[in-house]
Amino acid sequence: MIRVTVWNEYRHEKIDDRVRNIYPEGIHGAIAGFLGMHEDITVRTATLDEPECGLTQEVLDNTDVLIWWGHMAHHEVPEDVVVRVQESVLKGMGLVVLHSGHHSKIFKRLMGTSCNLSWRFEGTDGDMERLWVVAPDHPITQGIDRYFDLPGEEMYGEPFDIPEPDKLLFLGWYEGGEVFRSGCCWRRGRGKIFYFQPGHETCPTYHIHWVQTVITNGVRWAEPESRVAALECPNVKKPTPKF
Amino acid sequence: MIRVTVWNEYRHEKIDDRVRNIYPEGIHGAIAGFLGMHEDITVRTATLDEPECGLTQEVLDNTDVLIWWGHMAHHEVPEDVVVRVQESVLKGMGLVVLHSGHHSKIFKRLMGTSCNLSWRFEGTDGDMERLWVVAPDHPITQGIDRYFDLPGEEMYGEPFDIPEPDKLLFLGWYEGGEVFRSGCCWRRGRGKIFYFQPGHETCPTYHIHWVQTVITNGVRWAEPESRVAALECPNVKKPTPKF
Amino acid sequence: MIRVTVWNEYRHEKIDDRVRNIYPEGIHGAIAGFLGMHEDITVRTATLDEPECGLTQEVLDNTDVLIWWGHMAHHEVPEDVVVRVQESVLKGMGLVVLHSGHHSKIFKRLMGTSCNLSWRFEGTDGDMERLWVVAPDHPITQGIDRYFDLPGEEMYGEPFDIPEPDKLLFLGWYEGGEVFRSGCCWRRGRGKIFYFQPGHETCPTYHIHWVQTVITNGVRWAEPESRVAALECPNVKKPTPKF
Amino acid sequence: MIRVTVWNEYRHEKIDDRVRNIYPEGIHGAIAGFLGMHEDITVRTATLDEPECGLTQEVLDNTDVLIWWGHMAHHEVPEDVVVRVQESVLKGMGLVVLHSGHHSKIFKRLMGTSCNLSWRFEGTDGDMERLWVVAPDHPITQGIDRYFDLPGEEMYGEPFDIPEPDKLLFLGWYEGGEVFRSGCCWRRGRGKIFYFQPGHETCPTYHIHWVQTVITNGVRWAEPESRVAALECPNVKKPTPKF
Repeated sequence: MIRVTVWNEYRHEKIDDRVRNIYPEGIHGAIAGFLGMHEDITVRTATLDEPECGLTQEVLDNTDVLIWWGHMAHHEVPEDVVVRVQESVLKGMGLVVLHSGHHSKIFKRLMGTSCNLSWRFEGTDGDMERLWVVAPDHPITQGIDRYFDLPGEEMYGEPFDIPEPDKLLFLGWYEGGEVFRSGCCWRRGRGKIFYFQPGHETCPTYHIHWVQTVITNGVRWAEPESRVAALECPNVKKPTPKF
Repeated sequence: MIRVTVWNEYRHEKIDDRVRNIYPEGIHGAIAGFLGMHEDITVRTATLDEPECGLTQEVLDNTDVLIWWGHMAHHEVPEDVVVRVQESVLKGMGLVVLHSGHHSKIFKRLMGTSCNLSWRFEGTDGDMERLWVVAPDHPITQGIDRYFDLPGEEMYGEPFDIPEPDKLLFLGWYEGGEVFRSGCCWRRGRGKIFYFQPGHETCPTYHIHWVQTVITNGVRWAEPESRVAALECPNVKKPTPKF
Repeated sequence: MIRVTVWNEYRHEKIDDRVRNIYPEGIHGAIAGFLGMHEDITVRTATLDEPECGLTQEVLDNTDVLIWWGHMAHHEVPEDVVVRVQESVLKGMGLVVLHSGHHSKIFKRLMGTSCNLSWRFEGTDGDMERLWVVAPDHPITQGIDRYFDLPGEEMYGEPFDIPEPDKLLFLGWYEGGEVFRSGCCWRRGRGKIFYFQPGHETCPTYHIHWVQTVITNGVRWAEPESRVAALECPNVKKPTPKF
Repeated sequence: MIRVTVWNEYRHEKIDDRVRNIYPEGIHGAIAGFLGMHEDITVRTATLDEPECGLTQEVLDNTDVLIWWGHMAHHEVPEDVVVRVQESVLKGMGLVVLHSGHHSKIFKRLMGTSCNLSWRFEGTDGDMERLWVVAPDHPITQGIDRYFDLPGEEMYGEPFDIPEPDKLLFLGWYEGGEVFRSGCCWRRGRGKIFYFQPGHETCPTYHIHWVQTVITNGVRWAEPESRVAALECPNVKKPTPKF
């Protein structure tokens, strides 16, 4: 059983009717909803305005994969929560970072870069986006054909200031003329990290079947092999031969 | 002084008026022309129908960077020439593979994969292509702004069956709706390899300033640090401490 | 159920008493023996002197992971068998290459490099080797502590002429003073490849528990996500929006 | 002309006679000494106890490559200095991190991991270390034969909790029985980073010719292609075709 915690900033939904109409239970509620349909996954949620952002040590210790959605209040996440999440990832907890989470403190801290990009949202719906599978052999792309389309999304464009991904999975094509590395994987410490671009708050992206498939695959991929102690920095004796 | 050999299959130009009108001196002549304008580069050319494809051991031993364009006659390049070029790359010779050279024997041999992709050329001009810089810090992208456009090119689309590039430099966006890893780097043995997608024979691509800039940068990047013997497989004694 | 085929050159065992005494059923027999103990694995073997090297299309089509051991007769493996195995890997079949298989035609073809290294076997037992885990989070290193030791092995030393691994798993330390990237992973096409250094024919390496653990883990890791058609090179129409 | 700033914590030299005897001008003085002999390099130094650690914005803006040595006082480097250095690296400044600098705030921040390792210093001199060249084609290993030896060093052993290096250059072999990825490269933002393991304060490591060669090569490699503005996060309009 994979224990998932879906973290959401949960602010847009409270102040913007358009967002609340799309996600009446919040973005976290929508994501928890489709993940919870799977028998191998058990889900809880956590949000910014809960005590300790809902991410106590006890919660993190019982989370195999953390999903992160944030946008307008990245700066309100306290440093000690960020450190705690980072340490959990380095110990093996998987992390799936969605959309504007590219600018979250936790993602920037794990990447070491600005995670800047170029962006645009014009009109009511933004750009049509087509997501192409670059790695058809990867667990996260299973069940997806050559590509899938999103009728409207915020455009995120290159250059994307990230470390070279360990594996590039999706490339995004936008009708406005840009491209983006829309799905990328890294390992940091013992933990696996998956960044996935779709999910602007005014678009019904997380209701789309293909997006749900990718996120579900991402959760299964990011589940740790083991949750042992973090890598320490021991003073060691000369190793004894073991035959 | 960087010693460049531009290799071209040189068949389309002989049988197709459209191609000959664009490249009256052959594609190799056009590429040699703009490279030869630079004071740090000296150029020669070689073509398929010359003895040994123009790629004798003596030529390869005096080549720092080999540029490769081929399309309709990949299968006519003899195995021993392919082996000879591969060995030169592993010893340090740089290799710049252009456009349909993705299916050349030498590129497939160095990659170990099929190098398949999807493709399309419709109408007179093909698709408009926009090439985005993903790695603005890399030597090969210097002098290029965020992107540049080609009015018409053959569409090459993902998935592109290559090993994960050591470094991804350009992403191609096509008006028809596809994306492509249009500029990629690898090292094999002591040699550096750069694949660059543009250059369909019926498009005047190699006359375009930005394409010339990228290929020139590619030549300078691919120049070997040193041209020593290949890595051998020696039976060695226990190393002597050297203080 | 993972369907494994263990391929062995099977020549040393026939002509050298020392080898036959260590592996009375052949190296393939020893490997098949410990793999076959696992309920999720079913094993068959194939050897050089069987028709088509025992690797007919039918065998390959029913193999999820192929293990390869060869040494003195690499050159006797016919080209068409090598091509057939390569195509199977590109379609998704996993490949575990052991020890002197670094110089097999199939490994060199998939790597694109010489796969040269430095080597030494002195005395009766060679060098003591210690294998350190570099990636404690990887499926292949599960069940292994910080390191394990082999009392005697052939020394394989750097530089090892391979493409940069997608993931480095083990580093070997030799009492004679060398180091080696003893466990490395790559993807080629849809297939996963694991190279593992131990296994000189005059050492009882494949009877050692830790080596068996790593190879078993390697088989489970290399099992394909799916065995679909290889990546083709289709002429495609403009993609139709799919909402 | 490459403008190098050598930063040193400069504490051991003030309190420990052994260190002061080896490095009477400080570790920074020794490194600045051999670098300054090269006509293409101009050097300044900076230390922890200077105002702003000697790393004002003005200093960083005029530094092409920063060298970092720290050990006992990592925690005394103020956060705002760390942020300033990180931003300079992301804008293109090269960074060469030496030895115990693996635990510096700036290195951990750029890596995103704990950068933990195992370690040992026994006796007067520690372990003999042999550094093997893994990448003989790389600019940083030029002028080095297959390996070089250090008579005594602190042992740093695997697992080393770092992101997979973009390029692995050196592997360390220790007489005590460990191995280490002793030379590694990464890019972060527009900046190049080189970590090099040797340099324990009670060993005369920076007086050794081969170590000086590697650090000098590292400086030349890490020099930025260009020092333009950092990657920003602009709101962009639809790109205009540029033909």
